[in-house]
Amino acid sequence: MVRIALDAMGGDFAPAVPVAGAMEALEELPESCEVVLVGRSEDIDTVLSERGGRPDRIQIVDAREIIDMGEKPLAAVRGKRKSSIRIGLELQKRGEAEAFISAGNTGAVMAASTLLLGLHPGVERAAIAALFPTIAKPVMVVDAGANIDCSPRELRGFAHIGTVYARDVLGREDPTVGLLNIGEEEEKGSQAVRAAFELLKGDPGINFAGNVEGRDIVLGNLDVVVCDGFVGNVVLKFYESVAQLFTDLLRREMDQAVLDSAAMGKVLRVLDYSTYGGAPLLGVRGVSVICHGRSPSRAIKNAIHVALRSVQSHLSQHIGVELAGGAV
Amino acid sequence: MVRIALDAMGGDFAPAVPVAGAMEALEELPESCEVVLVGRSEDIDTVLSERGGRPDRIQIVDAREIIDMGEKPLAAVRGKRKSSIRIGLELQKRGEAEAFISAGNTGAVMAASTLLLGLHPGVERAAIAALFPTIAKPVMVVDAGANIDCSPRELRGFAHIGTVYARDVLGREDPTVGLLNIGEEEEKGSQAVRAAFELLKGDPGINFAGNVEGRDIVLGNLDVVVCDGFVGNVVLKFYESVAQLFTDLLRREMDQAVLDSAAMGKVLRVLDYSTYGGAPLLGVRGVSVICHGRSPSRAIKNAIHVALRSVQSHLSQHIGVELAGGAV
Repeated sequence: MVRIALDAMGGDFAPAVPVAGAMEALEELPESCEVVLVGRSEDIDTVLSERGGRPDRIQIVDAREIIDMGEKPLAAVRGKRKSSIRIGLELQKRGEAEAFISAGNTGAVMAASTLLLGLHPGVERAAIAALFPTIAKPVMVVDAGANIDCSPRELRGFAHIGTVYARDVLGREDPTVGLLNIGEEEEKGSQAVRAAFELLKGDPGINFAGNVEGRDIVLGNLDVVVCDGFVGNVVLKFYESVAQLFTDLLRREMDQAVLDSAAMGKVLRVLDYSTYGGAPLLGVRGVSVICHGRSPSRAIKNAIHVALRSVQSHLSQHIGVELAGGAV
Repeated sequence: MVRIALDAMGGDFAPAVPVAGAMEALEELPESCEVVLVGRSEDIDTVLSERGGRPDRIQIVDAREIIDMGEKPLAAVRGKRKSSIRIGLELQKRGEAEAFISAGNTGAVMAASTLLLGLHPGVERAAIAALFPTIAKPVMVVDAGANIDCSPRELRGFAHIGTVYARDVLGREDPTVGLLNIGEEEEKGSQAVRAAFELLKGDPGINFAGNVEGRDIVLGNLDVVVCDGFVGNVVLKFYESVAQLFTDLLRREMDQAVLDSAAMGKVLRVLDYSTYGGAPLLGVRGVSVICHGRSPSRAIKNAIHVALRSVQSHLSQHIGVELAGGAV
């Protein structure tokens, strides 16, 4: 039995959307998978009742406090011991759940995951792995915002945990890893990136594709792109916004009949972030998946799939072994 | 009379495309504007002949050498004294042209512009200003790739030269400047960006909008976005590539009739880089505009307009005054 804890109070449309995502997921998940909704039980019950009652494979664990989007992460995690984020992660710590998912305060989920699950030896700070749509297979960008002013060793660490994730969860064989830079030549880039290039070039555990540029991210021929969390976060948010710009432009200019066509549906689906579910927090001892605050139920449902694959593939254990190998 | 020197040998489709861009520009430019094509005169003549001969307002200045895209910039600029890039900039140095445009080796254009035109006092290195399409007015991103590992003072300098450019060339009154970061809160970001925030917050010469995120770039409510050249270059190339991804997706999925419609034309035009012409190199004593190597003639034509507006608005002199004011 795999039990996935889901923060029912996280995100802009909680608890309605997380609950809806859990119900949608159940229709697709194997019988051996349960979802544990964590939050104010009366609020969760209300939503479940509206949707025809609680299915057997949905459990509820009561949590009275909510960490708001605007709160300072560390203070909130320390101060709100009854928050849905803490209680959801404590289930995993006690072995009562195997994964945690939240669309709530990203910083608080990161801080609480680190505090309660701990980090694998060799990891100084967990990294956010974000999947980007491309014209072909999606590419994973690590780090997408958790780590700023990264050292060359940290960048190499992202390459390793990204490789394990791409193999275990995305099913890529021998994943290719590119180092995000401003040119392909070895001597390009910031000091940290130039030093990271040297480390990665000589690393037998990495299928290193060398320096890659901003334009290479969406070409679809890479599995993992490694970068400082500052750059990764800017590019991730930029991508979301550009996809929205593009959608807005189409809506403004095109006829409704074209917008409603199956062909346009395909185009918009590629650009729709909710297809990709959540961004796993890599480096923690366990499974913690972060969703966008504006996630629709489909994104929550897909995050549950991501969490399940992470558990079933023993992702966290493999990352622990990879890092314990002395590579990082 | 304004004379704009254009590198006829620069870019992936030289000399055909630069020559075509110059001819197209002449149809729109005031009578008082001439274009000086710099490069192998026999190659330029061939293209001009194919297009009906040399118009009066196009001059040719012979340059025998070409700096290739893959050459090391500084070595190429030093070694190839007869290159079209050097000779084009020397015209400006001698007062025989007021601006220079090239779609050639970006690093070489930067190095040669710095070497031959010089920098305004207070500028350590010129910055690339790239215009990004948004849903509303375009936004200028400085620096888009010339400066890596920027100090807080350099970031403040970008805010100043970006402000002058937005006012002089884009016609924005009291331009708003955002500092690219990973969150809106003051304490967010890398060390350099946090320190730059402090400098900009207290700077009376900047209409500072505070920290902005990746998603804010294309919303269209900013005039200037300031960032390290590493981040700016990644985002610029990423944007180009995403626009291409969108276009490819539409071409793959939609019927030809929809693709050919006026509405789709509007959508694709917003995403088309060639609308925006070239990226000016700011901080040099003069006007130097860099175009993408793959620029079509329309981009070259638009770059000529950018160069002309830069000359007519006395952009370089204004940047000199702004920086001499002790602000940077």
